[in-house]
Amino acid sequence: MSGASGAGRAAAFWLSLRVYYEDTDAGGVVYYANYLKYLERARTEWLRAAGYEQAEIATQRGLLFVVRAVSIEYRAPGRLDDRLDVSARVERVGRASIDFEHSIECDGAELCEAQVAVACLDAETFRPRVLPADLKGVLAGER
Amino acid sequence: MSGASGAGRAAAFWLSLRVYYEDTDAGGVVYYANYLKYLERARTEWLRAAGYEQAEIATQRGLLFVVRAVSIEYRAPGRLDDRLDVSARVERVGRASIDFEHSIECDGAELCEAQVAVACLDAETFRPRVLPADLKGVLAGER
Amino acid sequence: MSGASGAGRAAAFWLSLRVYYEDTDAGGVVYYANYLKYLERARTEWLRAAGYEQAEIATQRGLLFVVRAVSIEYRAPGRLDDRLDVSARVERVGRASIDFEHSIECDGAELCEAQVAVACLDAETFRPRVLPADLKGVLAGER
Amino acid sequence: MSGASGAGRAAAFWLSLRVYYEDTDAGGVVYYANYLKYLERARTEWLRAAGYEQAEIATQRGLLFVVRAVSIEYRAPGRLDDRLDVSARVERVGRASIDFEHSIECDGAELCEAQVAVACLDAETFRPRVLPADLKGVLAGER
Repeated sequence: MSGASGAGRAAAFWLSLRVYYEDTDAGGVVYYANYLKYLERARTEWLRAAGYEQAEIATQRGLLFVVRAVSIEYRAPGRLDDRLDVSARVERVGRASIDFEHSIECDGAELCEAQVAVACLDAETFRPRVLPADLKGVLAGER
Repeated sequence: MSGASGAGRAAAFWLSLRVYYEDTDAGGVVYYANYLKYLERARTEWLRAAGYEQAEIATQRGLLFVVRAVSIEYRAPGRLDDRLDVSARVERVGRASIDFEHSIECDGAELCEAQVAVACLDAETFRPRVLPADLKGVLAGER
Repeated sequence: MSGASGAGRAAAFWLSLRVYYEDTDAGGVVYYANYLKYLERARTEWLRAAGYEQAEIATQRGLLFVVRAVSIEYRAPGRLDDRLDVSARVERVGRASIDFEHSIECDGAELCEAQVAVACLDAETFRPRVLPADLKGVLAGER
Repeated sequence: MSGASGAGRAAAFWLSLRVYYEDTDAGGVVYYANYLKYLERARTEWLRAAGYEQAEIATQRGLLFVVRAVSIEYRAPGRLDDRLDVSARVERVGRASIDFEHSIECDGAELCEAQVAVACLDAETFRPRVLPADLKGVLAGER
């Protein structure tokens, strides 16, 4: 269902998911905003695979990961019942930010490509917070 | 756009809204879960028209309105670009609960009918809290 | 991840899924409409496990499964990162309808219980269509 | 509620909308994918104000408007009960494409800025189709 990838896709984490009616629109394809949900599921599962859960990070460390910017290109549409593969790869780790590179594929064909900039914020004040060393290590190690 | 209704629809609050691509699915109609969003928008606007906002109630009074049960019948589908009228009517006010009766119409034809039971909870403990007197008065007066 | 269940849960199909940020609301719990998405995912995966895909059924047989009524009780909230188990069990098969019984659990505790009535419609005319014999057999056999 | 703007905001169409629980997540703010829904509502209402409905365009002309690319920057979060103003402005009209410039504001403060590239496709083949002259005129006139 998911896991870190082998040689050809080195350093990227891949999550498989299924397209349901809830994801589609009257055009018969996946609604364009819903791909952003898929991207976040991949980032979340990658973090979980590395031993971290967002709810825990928020509650115990008072940290929130917030998306600052998204750039996404739609090449081909996903459709009902499609099995999609969604990748998440850390492109750059900053002091209080992480840049992700994403791809969504169906049967080996690329549907979308996206860059997502995530900021690390204080859960109370919503101000930037330096990434904790352990998390930073995990993030960097995944490169 | 919205308002309390006249004689024939006495005591019901009506909200008009538009069906967008985000609301539809590959069957070409409004996705069945999304009607529940419409119902909540109507309850929220009815509360706002009565002078209350949910965010404020949560922050200042520590109260949360939580749905306990929904019973909904789908008669006819809503479609892209349809203008829908959604009603919210208080059916019964309990010590820590409110029962709503809803209807969704399009051009006078009924698409859905629903009953929604809402509980009043403490925002921290998630335990039932007696409805404040002023809110109860507003709720009862809307009957 | 999913499968037909053993003795104690005979005849029910169970799907496991994870709660993501997309599913939650500002109350800190799963938004009430989103449980209906979970129920549909379970019905869909149950159908898939039996060898049928909804997109295929729509395209090749001109059939659409449409929800006619939902009755759902919310007992306890799902939260971010929760792993939920969603069941789908056929309660009754009619000429052109199927009644499902659903349950959503988290760590063995029941969060929701729901009944969903599904109608079999002609994909073009949206009028009721008798369930094909093979599908009816599969549905009945799952009891 | 909506309309073409005056001098300072020349050539932009603005739509006002309200943030409901459905739009928010457990972080207490609007979920990042949902801003894309707001952008599409603004494009749709702008088109409707110009006399066109998407469902009609799809059915009668066999045309589909499909998003090719989105670039969005999130500056500040929207919250429950916020009243947001969403702008849509045509930046460039191509042979079979339209580039939109969007902004989302709350009480005059900018929450997001986005660029959305839309392609005009054949509703059957999903291949690019030249924009009809009348539509192109309306789009260009809105500049």
